Amino acid sequence: MDTARRVAEAADLVTVALDELLPRADGPETRLTEAMRYAALGPGKRLRTYFALETGRMFDLEERSVLRAACALECIQAYSLIHDDLPCMDDDDMRRGRPSVHIAYDEMTAVLAGDALQAAAFEILAHPDTHADGGVRAELVLRLALASGARGMVGGQMIDMLGVREDLGGVARMQRLKTGALITCAFELPLVLAHAQDAERHALIAFAHDLGLAYQIVDDLLDAEGDAEVMGKAAGKDAGRGKTTFVTLLGADAARERLGLLTTQTKSHLDPFGPRAEFLRASVDFVLERRQ
Amino acid sequence: MDTARRVAEAADLVTVALDELLPRADGPETRLTEAMRYAALGPGKRLRTYFALETGRMFDLEERSVLRAACALECIQAYSLIHDDLPCMDDDDMRRGRPSVHIAYDEMTAVLAGDALQAAAFEILAHPDTHADGGVRAELVLRLALASGARGMVGGQMIDMLGVREDLGGVARMQRLKTGALITCAFELPLVLAHAQDAERHALIAFAHDLGLAYQIVDDLLDAEGDAEVMGKAAGKDAGRGKTTFVTLLGADAARERLGLLTTQTKSHLDPFGPRAEFLRASVDFVLERRQ
Repeated sequence: MDTARRVAEAADLVTVALDELLPRADGPETRLTEAMRYAALGPGKRLRTYFALETGRMFDLEERSVLRAACALECIQAYSLIHDDLPCMDDDDMRRGRPSVHIAYDEMTAVLAGDALQAAAFEILAHPDTHADGGVRAELVLRLALASGARGMVGGQMIDMLGVREDLGGVARMQRLKTGALITCAFELPLVLAHAQDAERHALIAFAHDLGLAYQIVDDLLDAEGDAEVMGKAAGKDAGRGKTTFVTLLGADAARERLGLLTTQTKSHLDPFGPRAEFLRASVDFVLERRQ
Repeated sequence: MDTARRVAEAADLVTVALDELLPRADGPETRLTEAMRYAALGPGKRLRTYFALETGRMFDLEERSVLRAACALECIQAYSLIHDDLPCMDDDDMRRGRPSVHIAYDEMTAVLAGDALQAAAFEILAHPDTHADGGVRAELVLRLALASGARGMVGGQMIDMLGVREDLGGVARMQRLKTGALITCAFELPLVLAHAQDAERHALIAFAHDLGLAYQIVDDLLDAEGDAEVMGKAAGKDAGRGKTTFVTLLGADAARERLGLLTTQTKSHLDPFGPRAEFLRASVDFVLERRQ
């Protein structure tokens, strides 16, 4: 059971599927579709896709449906990174070892490519190819819209930008919205496709919440101590900007200790699933031991 | 039959409905929800809402469903105006006689408020309150995503920004994408709700296409000759930026002549509907004789 290989395979699957689904360069708006593809088809860990696909396998779902849901998640993820990197936001020139979209193209194209990728996400979910039942498709759209909007990802980004969080509760809420909502959605969309029972749904959502929180602590540790070359982006950004993070609040040692406890708790949410959750269980260590 | 009053009533209806649907200021992300409300609840002609409501009445649709579809259209319209006004795009400080969102707030908030309004549009359509049939809701989402994405509104905005249109065909294609797609969608969404027959659908879509084109010619004429005080925004912007428009290509007189022919053609698409289309027919002159 090699998690790294399974993650890489999931990334390949979603990249091929996205390549099919995203509009191709054509006509005078070529610059737009090229920028969308540059952002969405470039290198990435594709962890949301991995979580969605493994959850789909746990419930014996049709891979095509889950893969389209994963494509929608990756479109939202790609659009949020494009907009986050803009000069008026995090002002990051590099993303995953390559120039950010507003550097490779320009700011105007970056704003529009992000906007169009968001629309593409909902287009993919709502299309009949995603699932035969329209009610299921509408529910997928609703979940993704809630996770990515003002009460989810965008709300979290606003809190992060304003820096309005002095304590652990504030940092945790920011994380839950900014990154946690979309990670949770990677489990929610397959759960919708599976018509999962409440007990299974609650267990997996609890898993997603803790995993997202643990992931953020790792992120903060990497930002504080990581190697820019390995990460493909600048390290020490948050501290340099005076941002409050789990590490600035707790210190690195206490943050690491908390991460250990949280990792155990995260895995325990999978107990009800028994051996069906074998791969998700194995992926926890893989995801949290990353170095970038 | 006073079209101005009916348009004003439609605007009031959608503003009240949006006020209910949009998230309220709450928590540290208050700045985000305030900016969303500033943009979406401010003054506006709400013509897309008016078209959607009149089409809904033509097909005896439940007003609640059509009104929610109109709210989604207005969310997309509001987000696109916020992003269009950004310094890296049209760089407009004023919108409808008030400071643009990036002036009233800041650029970062403007980008995020636009992003969140787009998500809100799809959230509204996908919610069970919009229609009992999930298949209808998914179809509404699909239509709006197509109209507003890379092959619709955002693609048109890209073409407009790049200025890649030397001839009438290029200007017409840009218009069809940038503004035409969302105007057409104001008719398409009620047609989806109505399960309308192909013949009626085609007639109304043709009406929407011609109306959108005529609307753009009026826009270009107003930009070339309008009064900034009446319009609530600067006049002569397009010419000042060297933009190619129907007026710069044809001259004002020929553009006005074309507008006259187009107006007659636009109304003729309503013939199959007979007296049911009374209010839509009357609205053509109202819409095209506007001075702002």
